[in-house]
Amino acid sequence: MIRLSVFYPATEGATFDHDYYREKHVPLCTSTWGLDGAEIDKGVDGPYVAAVHFKFASQDALAAAMASEGTGAVLADLVNYTTIAPVLQTSEIVG
Amino acid sequence: MIRLSVFYPATEGATFDHDYYREKHVPLCTSTWGLDGAEIDKGVDGPYVAAVHFKFASQDALAAAMASEGTGAVLADLVNYTTIAPVLQTSEIVG
Repeated sequence: MIRLSVFYPATEGATFDHDYYREKHVPLCTSTWGLDGAEIDKGVDGPYVAAVHFKFASQDALAAAMASEGTGAVLADLVNYTTIAPVLQTSEIVG
Repeated sequence: MIRLSVFYPATEGATFDHDYYREKHVPLCTSTWGLDGAEIDKGVDGPYVAAVHFKFASQDALAAAMASEGTGAVLADLVNYTTIAPVLQTSEIVG
């Protein structure tokens, strides 16, 4: 299983709309990529104000999702909820 | 639900023993803190070579775990698997 995590680093003067993220953006991601769900984090303490974790069956499945037609609209939606540049992490879930 | 994530940033010249981490260290964490499990990441692409995600029922439960007698041994075990200084993130799981 592959995890794609997207982190939003706490940034001086930046904005992040947690409600839009949870209610609009992440559902757009899961519907675009055909995922059952995702886990959404609201930062309490640490370097990130928010994050999301998506699970894919394989790296090929992740690559296919990223290459799919709707991914452009997902990326273009960023400006609707934040001014923060996200950090992406891909990992294999090993336990 | 509260997530405690521990990230290990990719660091020039650093070492990380993924087998020890999965087979010894994370099980020590879960048994010490009375958790059912944890999700362990092995980095494929991005800033982190490894990560773990623990879930706690509340911030009070997380605080109690951190203050428990065994936490010292958990922290002292770090040198057995890595030379990387971990980064901690606490988040509320909101979706």
